[in-house]
Amino acid sequence: MSQSMQAVVKTSAKPGVEVREVPVPSYGPSEVLVKVDAASVCGTDLHIYDWDPWAQGRIHPPLIPGHEFCGTVAKVGEQVTTVRPGDFVSAEMHVACGKCLQCRIGQAHVCQYVKIIGVDANGAFADFVVIPESNIWKLDPALPREYGSILDPLGNAVHTVLAAEIAARSVAIVGCGPIGLFAIAVARACGASTVFALEVNEHRRKLAQAMHADHVLNPATEDVAAMVAEKTGGIGVDVVLEMSGHADAMRLGFQILRTGGRVSLLGIPAKPVELDFARDIIFKGATVLGINGRKMYETWYQMEALLKAGKLDLSPVITHRLPMSDFAHGMELLKSGEASKIVLTPAK
Amino acid sequence: MSQSMQAVVKTSAKPGVEVREVPVPSYGPSEVLVKVDAASVCGTDLHIYDWDPWAQGRIHPPLIPGHEFCGTVAKVGEQVTTVRPGDFVSAEMHVACGKCLQCRIGQAHVCQYVKIIGVDANGAFADFVVIPESNIWKLDPALPREYGSILDPLGNAVHTVLAAEIAARSVAIVGCGPIGLFAIAVARACGASTVFALEVNEHRRKLAQAMHADHVLNPATEDVAAMVAEKTGGIGVDVVLEMSGHADAMRLGFQILRTGGRVSLLGIPAKPVELDFARDIIFKGATVLGINGRKMYETWYQMEALLKAGKLDLSPVITHRLPMSDFAHGMELLKSGEASKIVLTPAK
Amino acid sequence: MSQSMQAVVKTSAKPGVEVREVPVPSYGPSEVLVKVDAASVCGTDLHIYDWDPWAQGRIHPPLIPGHEFCGTVAKVGEQVTTVRPGDFVSAEMHVACGKCLQCRIGQAHVCQYVKIIGVDANGAFADFVVIPESNIWKLDPALPREYGSILDPLGNAVHTVLAAEIAARSVAIVGCGPIGLFAIAVARACGASTVFALEVNEHRRKLAQAMHADHVLNPATEDVAAMVAEKTGGIGVDVVLEMSGHADAMRLGFQILRTGGRVSLLGIPAKPVELDFARDIIFKGATVLGINGRKMYETWYQMEALLKAGKLDLSPVITHRLPMSDFAHGMELLKSGEASKIVLTPAK
Amino acid sequence: MSQSMQAVVKTSAKPGVEVREVPVPSYGPSEVLVKVDAASVCGTDLHIYDWDPWAQGRIHPPLIPGHEFCGTVAKVGEQVTTVRPGDFVSAEMHVACGKCLQCRIGQAHVCQYVKIIGVDANGAFADFVVIPESNIWKLDPALPREYGSILDPLGNAVHTVLAAEIAARSVAIVGCGPIGLFAIAVARACGASTVFALEVNEHRRKLAQAMHADHVLNPATEDVAAMVAEKTGGIGVDVVLEMSGHADAMRLGFQILRTGGRVSLLGIPAKPVELDFARDIIFKGATVLGINGRKMYETWYQMEALLKAGKLDLSPVITHRLPMSDFAHGMELLKSGEASKIVLTPAK
Repeated sequence: MSQSMQAVVKTSAKPGVEVREVPVPSYGPSEVLVKVDAASVCGTDLHIYDWDPWAQGRIHPPLIPGHEFCGTVAKVGEQVTTVRPGDFVSAEMHVACGKCLQCRIGQAHVCQYVKIIGVDANGAFADFVVIPESNIWKLDPALPREYGSILDPLGNAVHTVLAAEIAARSVAIVGCGPIGLFAIAVARACGASTVFALEVNEHRRKLAQAMHADHVLNPATEDVAAMVAEKTGGIGVDVVLEMSGHADAMRLGFQILRTGGRVSLLGIPAKPVELDFARDIIFKGATVLGINGRKMYETWYQMEALLKAGKLDLSPVITHRLPMSDFAHGMELLKSGEASKIVLTPAK
Repeated sequence: MSQSMQAVVKTSAKPGVEVREVPVPSYGPSEVLVKVDAASVCGTDLHIYDWDPWAQGRIHPPLIPGHEFCGTVAKVGEQVTTVRPGDFVSAEMHVACGKCLQCRIGQAHVCQYVKIIGVDANGAFADFVVIPESNIWKLDPALPREYGSILDPLGNAVHTVLAAEIAARSVAIVGCGPIGLFAIAVARACGASTVFALEVNEHRRKLAQAMHADHVLNPATEDVAAMVAEKTGGIGVDVVLEMSGHADAMRLGFQILRTGGRVSLLGIPAKPVELDFARDIIFKGATVLGINGRKMYETWYQMEALLKAGKLDLSPVITHRLPMSDFAHGMELLKSGEASKIVLTPAK
Repeated sequence: MSQSMQAVVKTSAKPGVEVREVPVPSYGPSEVLVKVDAASVCGTDLHIYDWDPWAQGRIHPPLIPGHEFCGTVAKVGEQVTTVRPGDFVSAEMHVACGKCLQCRIGQAHVCQYVKIIGVDANGAFADFVVIPESNIWKLDPALPREYGSILDPLGNAVHTVLAAEIAARSVAIVGCGPIGLFAIAVARACGASTVFALEVNEHRRKLAQAMHADHVLNPATEDVAAMVAEKTGGIGVDVVLEMSGHADAMRLGFQILRTGGRVSLLGIPAKPVELDFARDIIFKGATVLGINGRKMYETWYQMEALLKAGKLDLSPVITHRLPMSDFAHGMELLKSGEASKIVLTPAK
Repeated sequence: MSQSMQAVVKTSAKPGVEVREVPVPSYGPSEVLVKVDAASVCGTDLHIYDWDPWAQGRIHPPLIPGHEFCGTVAKVGEQVTTVRPGDFVSAEMHVACGKCLQCRIGQAHVCQYVKIIGVDANGAFADFVVIPESNIWKLDPALPREYGSILDPLGNAVHTVLAAEIAARSVAIVGCGPIGLFAIAVARACGASTVFALEVNEHRRKLAQAMHADHVLNPATEDVAAMVAEKTGGIGVDVVLEMSGHADAMRLGFQILRTGGRVSLLGIPAKPVELDFARDIIFKGATVLGINGRKMYETWYQMEALLKAGKLDLSPVITHRLPMSDFAHGMELLKSGEASKIVLTPAK
């Protein structure tokens, strides 16, 4: 096995990355060295690339980013028992501490001491990545590599949709980035009766159509509240999945929610948002759920079950495939608004 | 409007029924007179027809049976505000008291003072039936009459399936009478990952295939436990829906349930059943839910939503259409084991 | 029986009320005429009295306010079956329509067509009040009249506390008006491990002490976040019950909530509130529940059970008893900040 | 530190035990060596002592039994970070595998590969016991040692009571062994409105009285169903906690459950039980929960919170204190029916 590998590296505290040779990482007794088969790009990677204020506060270069991937086990530490070389795997990249209150009562997805591989430690935009055994997720070898590389954001969608009842309920998905688009598929597969997709970007609206949302609406030009009211007998939707993080979109989401309905909030607003709590939550008797990451590991089992059953056609969301060395081009595509999920493949 | 109508009447305390002319029923200020468009036959109707011990203890002839139907509103009492003549409707035939603890805390489906139309009062095997406004369910005129006539048992299926989480879960449906067959469709529509259908009757197994169960098994000739274990990685199914009421089948259901799984019990065993509670419930950490009727009226909203969304193809279950005057022939078909759901149509 | 009665009447669209003779109201076939034994004053009554913008938009004089009371059944309509003259009763004053989606799926407490007796129709600040039978709640004759008159706000507290798990959890009650004070008692009775009471008003803090809150804190002068952190091992409280409706207090409530915790929002902010949704709800994985009214009628059964079991000592909250004719004096007491719950007694 | 210690040892496959010197056990890098301060006796220990059929099938001598204890950390393995020598601790003695489906979705309490310390590995009836760090539970030094030694069965009670709603609900506890007695305290602390305690043994009934059950009934001599009906307005109890494992008692529990109520099953029946599922579960719309062990580690947090808050007076249940060397005498006391929880103290 080679001692060096190609990697996308944030080398210093400024915009951009370098694609270069670095040593293949070493692994500990309870860790797994995985040969990356495919890795996908997340909006977070763009923040890191652009070196925006969030990245400046969180990232400590040098860092190999990348937290969406699948690969083949190359080597395992001596204490590893659940996988072996040759296994096809992905991983939960939030490494929870396992010892805090949240971890011990089934809320590891909001562990306060979490480390994220690809953010706080070297990630998957490389030929190899090191993962603790606890976080490895073994995959069916029949799963397409592209699907294997997007389980992290698909898990966000599954967690958001299934955080409360969805069967036989109308749902509005606010914001159709990749996770919103995945949520269309998940909601439909799990019995949502009507799916409204709200999105201002035309390219994303086309993808929402391709994902078979029942009604794709543009809040910038259409009277969404009136249209939802018309389609729901004046009642509003049972469920709102907020995937945009935009203040106006969030308020619109609460507005179209029916009295007694449920909102799952996943999109991250960049700053505080003003909301009419009295009208939109209290008198409405609404249930609002903050959603972070994926449930460890219930969400993973749910994803696996839905994928194996062939219930999710996610192919429209994967708009681009690039060699990993074209990482910078991927960043440009993302900024253009014409790409959704971009899958990168290492050279070897 | 005519003063008399044709009806299927249990005239006296013995097997059989008569099809004959009776007066069109009168209705009170808060009641609705409905012209029956289609009515379906339930196993309960066979008990009444055959005058078995249950019927002898419950039924007081003369009685018009029939509790699955749809129709068109003919007349409404003076206090009725939510429907008017010409509306297409079905009805919840369990008339709950509205005043007991259960009714007042959202458990009206197990009201202890319930009266069932078609069992305790004249039902829908007639040209007209009288329904309290509170129990009327308005239907979309586009809904096929056959579907409109089977909402009662479809509601049993929906209540059973959705009594707890079903999305991304494997499920075994034990017993494939009409409700079990409906449950296949509902579970699939609501995201069940794998549906096992267990049934000893060959005709019903064929229908389970037609409903697209993933695995149709015959407990009389196949090692169901071994086959379920093989298909679930040795874990068992997440959810068991007991629809048979047979002791052996119930025990088999508990056996194939995974540790930590959920059982919904709908089938009514005729006598006490012996179960290894320690192994099958306690050490298993199982959740067991007794299911009765339909939730008033959450189940009805769920049915409506799933039907409107086109998520349920129930057509294979409706095996026979007969004029209502051929009621006795319908009884013979049911006894033959070659019929599933039989829809009756009044002459006028 | 006399034809006239004394009542507190909002006679016209301006501040103030008149105490004067009006006719004893008539009642319909499904209604109950109740002789008022005691009635309590709510903040809403002060809004009506002061004729603030909310009152100007909602109230149509002439109106008898008052929606917290108990009394003795005087007369019943001919269709009434569940109570009879002489019965001791209170009532749910939110009269839900019974026909909308929310009413039919167990969410009548957020019925969109609700009418509130004492707000939208004549209420209980009078010798007699008329209540629909459906909304009457029969009381144990042994219950003290003062307790019988405060079931409406006590129900708010019970609904808020029991909207999710409370046993063995730490809880912060933000705002110690009467409902907040009641919530201290309810939370303690239902197993809350530690109760923090936050309140800027000194009189209310003394009452919170009298209700045996574990820690009574003044957000205006104390570093509440630091004190809660210290008492909870740096984790924060499991549950926040927001009873103040003040923006700063709401934000403080979210701040001291532990990651993965639950917030119930009952207090009504007068205008939109700015909140850091990312930090306070989304990354925190928080569950936020909008609370309105009382669950019909589960909350009433819960109240009854807790009161009968002697688990709630509410006496410190009842700070004043007045003849109903001193209504205006009660208003002044409320404005002084030196009163909590005021109980009024009719002259006869 | 001494190389040998005193221990209660099941030396061979026959009734009885020996108290003798054995080597102090060695511990691994992620394990903790705990000096036992107090250990309590469970019915399981009596099965092992008597060498009954269950023990013959499960136990492989030589074995040191004992799975209820508290102690002081003596030594820690090199990878241990959460405790250090001198810490006061107890432990969850069910060592879950951490890798199976159940462990990974929050159901570790029913891990299918569980090992129980004191059953499958050497336990706490000794001067020292070895515990994996993952299973150590750190205690407040202020907790009385007797309470520290009974957290395992107290956890059973907490898990059983809090498996569903208990506040403001009537509850019947069927069987008043130590766990049933603890459940009285837990149910009362968590807001149960009325607690019925059912028990045939007079000594246990006296203890149930001492634990302040509202009604202590003897099913052998009293008409429990009639008495419960009388006290609940004919409705039955909201919740049944089955702690006896006796078939007749289980059936009685289901009989007195109200329609729509909840049963938690903890007591282990020795063989299959015949139940009228139609009447007792299905038509009743009952929820039946199989309860095993303690939730890891939510139950432990709940216990800790209730104990720290001073909400549980468990002292009546601890009927005997003995030196550990008097283990055989403890067994005789248990068999006499005159002991409830027996706490053993090591000599040094």
